[in-house]
Amino acid sequence: MLFTTDAVVAGIHVDSSLMSASDMGWKALTTAVSDIGAMGGTPAHAVVTLCAPPGTDVDGLAEGIGEAAARWRCPVVGGDLTGASQLVISVSITGTIEGEAPAVLRTGARPGDSILVTGPLGRSAAGLRLLAGGPGPRSGDDRTRADLVLAYRRPQARLDEGRAARAGGATAMMDVSDGLGLDLHRLAEASGVGIVLDTVPAAVGATEAEALGGGEDYELLIAVGDVDALAARFASRGLRPPIRIGACTADPSELRWGPDPLPRSGYQHQL
Amino acid sequence: MLFTTDAVVAGIHVDSSLMSASDMGWKALTTAVSDIGAMGGTPAHAVVTLCAPPGTDVDGLAEGIGEAAARWRCPVVGGDLTGASQLVISVSITGTIEGEAPAVLRTGARPGDSILVTGPLGRSAAGLRLLAGGPGPRSGDDRTRADLVLAYRRPQARLDEGRAARAGGATAMMDVSDGLGLDLHRLAEASGVGIVLDTVPAAVGATEAEALGGGEDYELLIAVGDVDALAARFASRGLRPPIRIGACTADPSELRWGPDPLPRSGYQHQL
Repeated sequence: MLFTTDAVVAGIHVDSSLMSASDMGWKALTTAVSDIGAMGGTPAHAVVTLCAPPGTDVDGLAEGIGEAAARWRCPVVGGDLTGASQLVISVSITGTIEGEAPAVLRTGARPGDSILVTGPLGRSAAGLRLLAGGPGPRSGDDRTRADLVLAYRRPQARLDEGRAARAGGATAMMDVSDGLGLDLHRLAEASGVGIVLDTVPAAVGATEAEALGGGEDYELLIAVGDVDALAARFASRGLRPPIRIGACTADPSELRWGPDPLPRSGYQHQL
Repeated sequence: MLFTTDAVVAGIHVDSSLMSASDMGWKALTTAVSDIGAMGGTPAHAVVTLCAPPGTDVDGLAEGIGEAAARWRCPVVGGDLTGASQLVISVSITGTIEGEAPAVLRTGARPGDSILVTGPLGRSAAGLRLLAGGPGPRSGDDRTRADLVLAYRRPQARLDEGRAARAGGATAMMDVSDGLGLDLHRLAEASGVGIVLDTVPAAVGATEAEALGGGEDYELLIAVGDVDALAARFASRGLRPPIRIGACTADPSELRWGPDPLPRSGYQHQL
């Protein structure tokens, strides 16, 4: 059995002036579901703790939580509602995993493994920039704009991709939640390997900085020995091909982006 | 499988000027464990979300969480740490239940059932009063004072009592978390029965108001048809005898304390 928890805090993870209560509810449940997906599992049940200041649109939050629970087939079976000065939505999820093999953690990457992501990055950060009144997408396309905004407001959990990666031999996996630069450092540290990043795949309308440090895309970061076997597994399930972005090395102190040091770009929680 | 969640919010459930970080950690895990106990179950695993403002004593919190996890045999298997403007500790717990019979919920009380509690009430509220510099315990006894303060800082989960109550035929159960008056109303509403309260068992050093409305004692509130069978079950397991405080009636609108209306005394979360 898998068991994971995640919190969304207003003003940190979400800006209530840029998204509706129902979007916040969606995001809270989906980011927790994403943690199960990043282990190669399938979500089973959720419990939700809502710490809400006076005047919070609890109905709207519940609506978005319910929509995400239906989308990811992860019913909410319990919860707790309490007052607070700041909105916090904490979601815990149980999950199951197919067959006998263990869940994929971030600790198993080996020197020589390739590093892949399940899609181009920076969409959520670009969507936030557009919502905050920043410069528009380079493509100037309304559909691109809508896609980026949706990526920020209604992120998706890569459950099919996570299961395919586990079945296809992934040695380590995590979701890109805080930013590719930072999350690559975490994967390398957890696995005791170095990483050389060759390319940063930015989504249409997103800048390279957004792709490297934006986070909140919830694409999966995958380490795997046999890239072709993994790609074949994705193809046989009708999934978008994963994108190879780099490789693991034997020296844990080696964290490079091409010839340069790999920055820890991403959201660092301050305590 | 059981699955439950609970949150402790600084300034609402705990006052960080009156208890240490380690006490707060203990309380957060223990109150979630108590929810499993109140269904007659046994805790299995916990995940913890910590939303913490800058300067939070995270080590102290972790110490108390770890002490409670060891005490209740409920290892913490995952967590999430994030910044926030207010300290929120959210704990989710999975649990197991013995045998085939379902968990005891708050919905099963029947007219004619007796209502019992597992111990005298008001200890936590009295402890808080003493810590806040209020008048001392009526007994004037240092040991009483220490016991009340400990009840506030280090509440206990009634796991043995919950399992004994389920085995002994409890029809409905919950823990007294927000206050006896309020929690009796909730039990009655969930079960569709009335309740006539005969007596409010105040702990030594606690006032009747504290026993009725203080909450946070985490004693179990039990409805049962055969009181003698339940008491025998408690006795055979070496547990303190439960205290009979009232009975369920057939009229859901009847909520009395002796001849008077039963007040909804307790902590009502404002939204």
